[in-house]
Amino acid sequence: MTTNDTRLCRTFQTAPAAVPRDDSAKFLTSGLTSEGFQTPDWLVPDIEDGTAPSMKAEAVDNVVERLPDHAPDFAGEILPRVEWAYDGQQFRERGTDQVRRLASEVGEHLDGVVVPKVGRLADVRDAANVIAEAERDAGLADGALDMAIILETAAARSDLREICRFATDSRLEAIVFGPVDYTAELGGRALDGERPRWDGLLEALSNETSAADIAAVGGPFDQLFHERAGVTYYNAEGYADQVEREATVGIDGSWSLHPKQTAQANRIHMPSTEELERDVSKIEAFNDAKREGTGAVVVDGQMVDEATYKNFANTVWQVRAIDAVHPQQTTAYYDEDLLARARDVALAFN
Amino acid sequence: MTTNDTRLCRTFQTAPAAVPRDDSAKFLTSGLTSEGFQTPDWLVPDIEDGTAPSMKAEAVDNVVERLPDHAPDFAGEILPRVEWAYDGQQFRERGTDQVRRLASEVGEHLDGVVVPKVGRLADVRDAANVIAEAERDAGLADGALDMAIILETAAARSDLREICRFATDSRLEAIVFGPVDYTAELGGRALDGERPRWDGLLEALSNETSAADIAAVGGPFDQLFHERAGVTYYNAEGYADQVEREATVGIDGSWSLHPKQTAQANRIHMPSTEELERDVSKIEAFNDAKREGTGAVVVDGQMVDEATYKNFANTVWQVRAIDAVHPQQTTAYYDEDLLARARDVALAFN
Amino acid sequence: MTTNDTRLCRTFQTAPAAVPRDDSAKFLTSGLTSEGFQTPDWLVPDIEDGTAPSMKAEAVDNVVERLPDHAPDFAGEILPRVEWAYDGQQFRERGTDQVRRLASEVGEHLDGVVVPKVGRLADVRDAANVIAEAERDAGLADGALDMAIILETAAARSDLREICRFATDSRLEAIVFGPVDYTAELGGRALDGERPRWDGLLEALSNETSAADIAAVGGPFDQLFHERAGVTYYNAEGYADQVEREATVGIDGSWSLHPKQTAQANRIHMPSTEELERDVSKIEAFNDAKREGTGAVVVDGQMVDEATYKNFANTVWQVRAIDAVHPQQTTAYYDEDLLARARDVALAFN
Repeated sequence: MTTNDTRLCRTFQTAPAAVPRDDSAKFLTSGLTSEGFQTPDWLVPDIEDGTAPSMKAEAVDNVVERLPDHAPDFAGEILPRVEWAYDGQQFRERGTDQVRRLASEVGEHLDGVVVPKVGRLADVRDAANVIAEAERDAGLADGALDMAIILETAAARSDLREICRFATDSRLEAIVFGPVDYTAELGGRALDGERPRWDGLLEALSNETSAADIAAVGGPFDQLFHERAGVTYYNAEGYADQVEREATVGIDGSWSLHPKQTAQANRIHMPSTEELERDVSKIEAFNDAKREGTGAVVVDGQMVDEATYKNFANTVWQVRAIDAVHPQQTTAYYDEDLLARARDVALAFN
Repeated sequence: MTTNDTRLCRTFQTAPAAVPRDDSAKFLTSGLTSEGFQTPDWLVPDIEDGTAPSMKAEAVDNVVERLPDHAPDFAGEILPRVEWAYDGQQFRERGTDQVRRLASEVGEHLDGVVVPKVGRLADVRDAANVIAEAERDAGLADGALDMAIILETAAARSDLREICRFATDSRLEAIVFGPVDYTAELGGRALDGERPRWDGLLEALSNETSAADIAAVGGPFDQLFHERAGVTYYNAEGYADQVEREATVGIDGSWSLHPKQTAQANRIHMPSTEELERDVSKIEAFNDAKREGTGAVVVDGQMVDEATYKNFANTVWQVRAIDAVHPQQTTAYYDEDLLARARDVALAFN
Repeated sequence: MTTNDTRLCRTFQTAPAAVPRDDSAKFLTSGLTSEGFQTPDWLVPDIEDGTAPSMKAEAVDNVVERLPDHAPDFAGEILPRVEWAYDGQQFRERGTDQVRRLASEVGEHLDGVVVPKVGRLADVRDAANVIAEAERDAGLADGALDMAIILETAAARSDLREICRFATDSRLEAIVFGPVDYTAELGGRALDGERPRWDGLLEALSNETSAADIAAVGGPFDQLFHERAGVTYYNAEGYADQVEREATVGIDGSWSLHPKQTAQANRIHMPSTEELERDVSKIEAFNDAKREGTGAVVVDGQMVDEATYKNFANTVWQVRAIDAVHPQQTTAYYDEDLLARARDVALAFN
């Protein structure tokens, strides 16, 4: 659902917080200093599966050290992914330590925390409580840290509806699909070389997150590059196909593993110029008709009821939400006049 | 599910109850006086989205004025769609007024009421209570007015199972899919020009309504006409494809926006001559075998157990249900002999 | 899910327990004496729909008479399918009698009982109680008889999540899809000659059984043979396609109606030589790295975390589970060296 309530998360870019290079924070820094359409709505410093077990401590150090320098100028939100697993106490303990250290040392630079491999509702509650306690002990405001979870276990899928109802009055703000672990949990097999698409899960995820007014994010696409006749090139088609399929069923954002993926997904999850022009015009015409007091609410031959109106308004809200945090993107993408109209048009049905 | 319990609703034809024409009840009257295969099982005078906001009052007037003339001779059922929205109190208030006026002035000509944009189970209960109270105050018999709801919000989809369990002992008799509002609620996008199909929802709708023995109805198809080289023609293929896809997964009926759509959907949701011939013959042979007391219940080499028998009987029940209210359709569709056999064959497994 | 907890059930072969032939136990005996890849993981003597109503008593007699001779040498498990129906008391009564007689007369040769046409959770509980009581009265150990159910009604599909949660602490060990009855219950129609695929149900079945650590089994495929130009041949492609589609979404086993189907499904639900070679090698390399104490857990350029490790281990566990009961199959299928490595490799992440 794209309303003025739902959290903006067109792109969820994970960046390994420590990699075995001279500068182990290379990818983290690169994410934090990205510009334009390469800036993700959410940057996710990855302390979990993206970082080698032997580098976990260094990963936390990197986040703690780099955020004070770069976070203030970073346009998106920052939510590190910590360790966690519904079926592994050691992961939950390490994750708890990571959350506590992040909250106490760089809490003011964080928008929240991403918790992977959650199980049933009770486990999601536990993770939320860990964040609440860390927040309190760090002296942060109540609710300063949001939570996103990765949906990648059979137990979490089974409890999806209940987890989303829990979101209504909790810090849970987004659910992100994790197809690799999920497929392994179910024993799915890539017999023809392709993982199953899990269409039923995506449809349910879109529905339940919409009912709870939180964001839904699709899974990563790891066939980043193709090779032909000795030349390797970015697989722009494959990723865009997946992101468009997700957008079609109302998934709000997509997982990105690379700045080029971020640049694509940011655009696909943005109203097109045609959509914006059409919907701004409809609202302007509707506003004019109301002002003239004709009582008529037929615009371009289409009756405008509250439901239709909401659809037009959703487009404008989404553009305004992007414009508020990424004006570089909106000014680069839309014609100046059109953007000004989207910023100015009055949005009120009654 | 097609049993002798499930409400007959092959076709759910909405007709705007007021349109900006000289005769504002033109489409309503035309629906009420339709004949043969153009007569829908359910005619739905539409006071909600099919009628302009400025014409709502006139729409109710039209229904109140035309029903006494036409309802007594109309072969199908009549269930007006009133205003309602789980997230809009004004709609619920207007809808309540509409239900009360319809019940008190033409209650004896109504089979029920269609309630759109319901939310979670509690909202469905509220709508049922509004109808119950209007029914009582109008002096109608308890349960005289049935209810159908449009499934077109994330909240209702989330509660579909609970809503269907509520149906078991309530006036809820059908659930109708509303894909346009539903897609907007989820933020789905028609990136390739086509709305998502929501296959998962249709499968769940078919299952839960079957478990509750109520009717499931598919969504409208609005690409009514095609144009080629200057000639506009009825899109018979597009609609029939959608209706057949719905029938395949056990959706009992289809939404119609036009008498031609009604004529098609009435036929598709009817057992074919081959199906009827086959299943009547099986039951006759089964009955003969029972009478001869052979103990054998193998018919044409196929063992007939209670489950198989039910499938044969379902076909006959469906034809009898249609025959009871639309004899014009059954006599036009089936050979005279075959229809007589379907009317006469004894239906009892034991 | 394929873990060391989930019951091995690659193949669920039903054999009519009585057929109208000179030797009415022909198919039962043939199943019990099958060899190699034609030996199903589960042999299901069918007293329900596979046996004519007039031969039910003889079917039970056959099972009671043949099991003492053949069960001791049969490599797989034996779970007869008895009569039952959530909506038919007479079936439940006959089923109860059948369970009691089987438990008391050949209980020591049985691994459990298959219960068809269950309804909501309460009905599944009733069936479990019938088995518990029969088990007790027969003097069998508590839990000696497992239960599998056929998922073939709208009510059971509606309660699938609750039924699987019940499995966690009950004798329910597998859920098997029954598409023919299910399609009839929902009123689905084979308008193009093909039954609907029920993809949503299969995805949900895979998820919920994985969350409960029980086995999921796909439905039967009855187009056993094709004919062309007067020659009839086994439809190896059609069945393998269905089994592969099931395996892809994590369904653990497939229904078989014929020894050739068993031979195919046993192989498809088995790790391929490539899968086994790859995963054994990864674990061996991981074990070496751990032993050398490098702290590095990068194997062939891939980081090995607990999740990745579990996937490798799952492959080995599955091979060991097959090897334990069907060594004929594993020795025929895998290279001797590879199988030895799979038997010997140490499986412990920490």
